[in-house]
Amino acid sequence: MKSLLVIAHGSRRQASNDEVRELTARIAHKTGQSFDIVQSAFLELAEPSIPGGIELCVKQGAKEVVVLPYFLSAGRHVAEDIPNEVAATRDKYPEVKITIAPYLGSIDTIADLMVAHAAQA
Amino acid sequence: MKSLLVIAHGSRRQASNDEVRELTARIAHKTGQSFDIVQSAFLELAEPSIPGGIELCVKQGAKEVVVLPYFLSAGRHVAEDIPNEVAATRDKYPEVKITIAPYLGSIDTIADLMVAHAAQA
Repeated sequence: MKSLLVIAHGSRRQASNDEVRELTARIAHKTGQSFDIVQSAFLELAEPSIPGGIELCVKQGAKEVVVLPYFLSAGRHVAEDIPNEVAATRDKYPEVKITIAPYLGSIDTIADLMVAHAAQA
Repeated sequence: MKSLLVIAHGSRRQASNDEVRELTARIAHKTGQSFDIVQSAFLELAEPSIPGGIELCVKQGAKEVVVLPYFLSAGRHVAEDIPNEVAATRDKYPEVKITIAPYLGSIDTIADLMVAHAAQA
């Protein structure tokens, strides 16, 4: 079983965290056969944490977890904090393949998305 | 003259701030006739600040500034901090029309982008 774990920063505003959870539900609805489990987790300020999110995936039977940072730029959270959290969890589940996908902002099409969005503003 | 001001969070990692500046340059290259000026600014930790970015646009002759929050979710930065910074600057330039576009994460197609990205992971 393959799992997608969407990692967001987390906020003191619950509406913001719920927004990420709703997005994750929409992604789950759209991924079709690619992922058996789609789960969200938060770097800080909201639950589940990254280790908690990975654990949820593993408990549901995931043998592979793809961690996708829902971040726009490679600040310290993307460059250091997320890899550190994931590395600590890898030791706990040596039988599970845990990989980190490039963060969302690294996608080439982000510029096009911004241009299209700005044109409507 | 119409200006687009891309607002990112800002990072202690200079590479992250430079990434935003490079994205802004790519956007400028693609916006064509829609915007005469495309500038980036940062909420914190990098320059120019939001008031500084608006000032740069106004000094180049902008009569209209569209502020586009380069953020994925509506945490306090999007809900409170950016509007507060913009409001303070509006008083300084009453002759300039300054509007705030919806933040990037509010776009419907974000879920599709995540699905496409995850499928390649």
